[in-house]
Order: sequence, then structure tokens, then C-alpha cells
Amino acid sequence: MTQPMFERVALIGLGLIGSSLAHVMRREGLAGHIAGHARSAATRDVAERLGFADSVHAKPADAVRGADLVMLCAPVGANASLAETISDHLAPGAILTDVGSVKAAVVRDVLPHVPKGVHFVPGHPIAGTEQSGPESGFAELFEHRWCILTPLDDSDADAVARLRLFWEACGSNVDIMDAEHHDRVLSVTSHLPQLIAYNIVTTAADLEEVTQQEVIKYSAGGFRDFTRLAASDPTMWRDVYLNNREAVLELLGRFSEDLSALQRAIRWGDGETLFSTFERSRDTRRRIIEAGQDTAEPNFGRED
Amino acid sequence: MTQPMFERVALIGLGLIGSSLAHVMRREGLAGHIAGHARSAATRDVAERLGFADSVHAKPADAVRGADLVMLCAPVGANASLAETISDHLAPGAILTDVGSVKAAVVRDVLPHVPKGVHFVPGHPIAGTEQSGPESGFAELFEHRWCILTPLDDSDADAVARLRLFWEACGSNVDIMDAEHHDRVLSVTSHLPQLIAYNIVTTAADLEEVTQQEVIKYSAGGFRDFTRLAASDPTMWRDVYLNNREAVLELLGRFSEDLSALQRAIRWGDGETLFSTFERSRDTRRRIIEAGQDTAEPNFGRED
Repeated sequence: MTQPMFERVALIGLGLIGSSLAHVMRREGLAGHIAGHARSAATRDVAERLGFADSVHAKPADAVRGADLVMLCAPVGANASLAETISDHLAPGAILTDVGSVKAAVVRDVLPHVPKGVHFVPGHPIAGTEQSGPESGFAELFEHRWCILTPLDDSDADAVARLRLFWEACGSNVDIMDAEHHDRVLSVTSHLPQLIAYNIVTTAADLEEVTQQEVIKYSAGGFRDFTRLAASDPTMWRDVYLNNREAVLELLGRFSEDLSALQRAIRWGDGETLFSTFERSRDTRRRIIEAGQDTAEPNFGRED
Repeated sequence: MTQPMFERVALIGLGLIGSSLAHVMRREGLAGHIAGHARSAATRDVAERLGFADSVHAKPADAVRGADLVMLCAPVGANASLAETISDHLAPGAILTDVGSVKAAVVRDVLPHVPKGVHFVPGHPIAGTEQSGPESGFAELFEHRWCILTPLDDSDADAVARLRLFWEACGSNVDIMDAEHHDRVLSVTSHLPQLIAYNIVTTAADLEEVTQQEVIKYSAGGFRDFTRLAASDPTMWRDVYLNNREAVLELLGRFSEDLSALQRAIRWGDGETLFSTFERSRDTRRRIIEAGQDTAEPNFGRED
């Protein structure tokens, strides 16, 4: 029998990411024991029924006790109080990590509660779907995706290396960067697109002359693409914007400037500006497909 | 042998839509003869090689001669001069239609060139992919999609009915509305989303502190969804914005107002506004899936 990578892994939060981690850990035999915690009794019931964890706990402290890997998988706004709650129960030598979409705020909220001898290594798998909750997880979620680790200056090198191996065993590629840079990068590749998707769906919901039924019926013209992101978990995303404010606001300023330039080109019939802007945008898609970060199939290869 | 629906169909333009129409007409036996015209010799060569048309013509007049259905499938900015060119060659009793994404401008550009006895019925299939050109077409493109016809007040009822049957035979559902309303509806479900997609890709391309390689690598956080639309044909889209100016500008004003409200909520840490906006947006996705206008699979069911 091969030795599992960790004896006991505690998943604090059993939504899309937590439950997917449980599935892939089980498939790959990465944990001797998977202990899960969820705040809501309904989520714990689903977890018990699906059986993706070996034990399910109402109290986070009971899940982390004796764990050599503890993963915070709740919305980032919950980290400060979760870290405080588990602090006294973390095993010496344990690795404490998280999966949050912002990293500087996680360091700010969690680090004060990390006891000496526990290795805190923040992390973020760039993976997800528009679904949420314990039933939405699946073992393949992290395959071919990047996971970014943002170790602190004094993070234990062995702990970082072990966590890297763990994510690689989940199917991910691992990158290392500092938390502030992570937050700037993700504001572009994730936080701004998500906000724009929410916003366009909001704009379309508030029209007088076009009915909602029309918006739905004719959504294949492009609108439907935005609604996928806009179906994502509102709590998770609220916490992202509250915790990556500066980077998102800076980027929103740029986005609005660029949009004003296009708006002006439309108003004044400036076809050359429109054409050159559109022409330039084509190339990005090609590069994303070449990098293996999206399918080359037209329309994402979707069935309908 | 069943009689084909039309004896000779002329496709003026052999890009994604024109070539897809040829494929589905051939599969369903809708045309006795498919005559194609493309402005560029390269496109005509591909059409000859793929053989989806029965004849390929360098001059639009040669394609439309004797056709009982003529379909304008070029970017909408080309319609005025195409209509003028073919005007004298249209057969009496022929149906003239188009597939353009804007309708009031098409009426403005084409109607002056429609001879007495030719039935002009503008149309718009809400179907497409991010790909373009004669190699991108396929017979299933129009299945389960809506096609909107915008007949004129004095359009011949039989001609409208025949065109409806044609699109239904291509797999589409058909709706009828006036051109102005079409342009307002499509500004929401198509023209604004497309412009926003181009804009966010532009914003992401112009950063100093985040590299383009980082944008590409971590695009699975949401950004990649926008790049699909932004890979669409720039000429086609330039013409859309130049020809649906009022509706798009009106909607852009609303979009920017809504975005300013979200921006303000982020700046002032107003989590309630963010949460309630996001929560409300979830429902739209569910309704689009129920209406059969998108897949229910997470992540569009894509493979990568």
C-alpha cells in the first residue's frame, strides 16, 4: 500500500471547491482521512449522503484536530472568524492553506491567528463552474488548471513544496507569486469579467421596451454567455469585491475609459476605430486556446 | 421525388451564415440549385473546393439571375451597393431577404433598390459562432435558434409565409416583429454583450503590471468566456454598430450607470448592494436554460 500524502486533511467548507477536493483526494488516495466541516446543517446532510468525506463535523475545531493539512474553503469573508475558531486546535507542524480568490486580505485575516509551528501557505486554484454547493463538486475540476500559491516571506520551504505536490496530484499546474501581484492578476482575469457579467445581466433586467421574455428567447446572440458567470455564488463574489477593492476599482476605471472611447466611435461613426479595436481582440482567443485554457470548438462545443 | 421548396436560391455572401445555409439546404433538399456569390476570390475557391454550392459566381448578378429566393449574407454595410448591383437582375416574383443583425438600416439601404414584383422580407437568424468564413459553416447552426422576420407593412403575406417555412425547415423557430423593435431587442441580447466583450479584452491587453502571458494563463477565472465573442468577425461587428447606433448608445448609457452603482458599492464596502445585485442575476441563467437557449452543463460542458 502506498502511503497517502497527508494522514488527515480537514476541509473547512464543503461547497464547489471543498467537495471537489474531497472527490479528487479520494480518487488519488491523497488523504488517509478526509474530515469535512460545513456551517450549514443542510450542507452537512448532503455531504453525509454523498459520502465524499470520511467524517463530517458541525464544529470546525473537530475537523482540524489532528489534521496535517487544513484547507479553508469558505467564502473569503469568513476566514477571519474561522481562523480564530480553529487556531487553538491546529496540530503542530500542520500546513494551513486556503482556496480564496483574493490573497492579500486572506493573509491579513488569517495570519494573526496562525500559531507558531503551523505553516501557513495561502493558495488559489483558478478553477470553478457557475454552480455551487456540495452537490456541484467533481474530481476533474482542477485538471489542466493553474493553482497559484502565495507563500509569505518566511513560509517553510518544505510546506510549500508539499502543497505544490498536493495540487499537482489534483491535476493542476502550480505557480508561485506574491499575494499583491496575485490580486492584481486575478482582478483582470476573473474579478472584472465577473462584475461585468453581473452588470450586463442587471442592465438587461431593467428595460421597459424590451421584455424579459425577449431577452431570454434571443439570448443566443451573445447575452447567454454572460449569464453563465452571473449564475455564480453571490456570497463568494460579494466577499471578493469587498476584499480586493483597490485592484478592482483601478481596473474598472480603465474599463470605463476604454468603453467611452468605443462609445464615442459609435456616436461619430468612426468605423476605423471600431474595426481596429475588434481586429486586435481576436488574437487573445487564439492564445488562450494555444495555452490549453479553453476549448477550440466553436461556441465552447456546447450542445444547445 | 419531393419538389424542393425553391428552384434556385442565391446566397450573396458565403461566410459562416451563407455557407451554413448552403449546408442545411442541401441536407434538407430545400433548393433545386444553390448559387453562391462571394466578393473575394479566396472565398470562392474554398466554396468550389468544399462544394456546398452548385455554382459559384464572381458577380452577384450572375448568382441571382433566375433565383426565386435571394439571400443577402454579407456584412450589413455592404447591402446598399449589393442591392443596387443585383436590382436589375432579380426575377419577378422572387423573394429577397437578408440575414443581417440590424434591420431598420437594412430596410433603409435595400428597399430603394427593390423592383416592383420582388418581395422584400428582411430576416435575422439569431445564430452564430465566433468563427467566420466559408469553412466555418455547418448544417446544424440554426437548430433550436430563433429567426426573426421583420416584414414591411406592405410585404406579401405569401412571401412571408414561404420564408417562415424555409427557416423552419432549417431547424429554427420563427418570430415576426417590426424592424425598430428588432433593433432594440438585439441591442440587448447581442450588440451590447459583444461590445462589452471586445472592450474587456482591450482593457486586459493594455496593462502594465500584469503581463499578457498571465492574462492568458489564468483566463479560466472568467476572462476566457469573453474572448470567445471577441474572436468574432470585426467587419461584421463594425457594421452592426454603425447601423444600430441609437439603440446601442442608449443601452450603453444604462450599462454605465449600473456599473457606476456597483463601483460605488465596492468603494464604500456596501456588501448588501453587491449581494442583492448578484443574487438577482442568478435567475436569468435558469430561465435561459429552461427556454432551451443554452446548455445546463456546468462551464457550457466544454472539454477544457
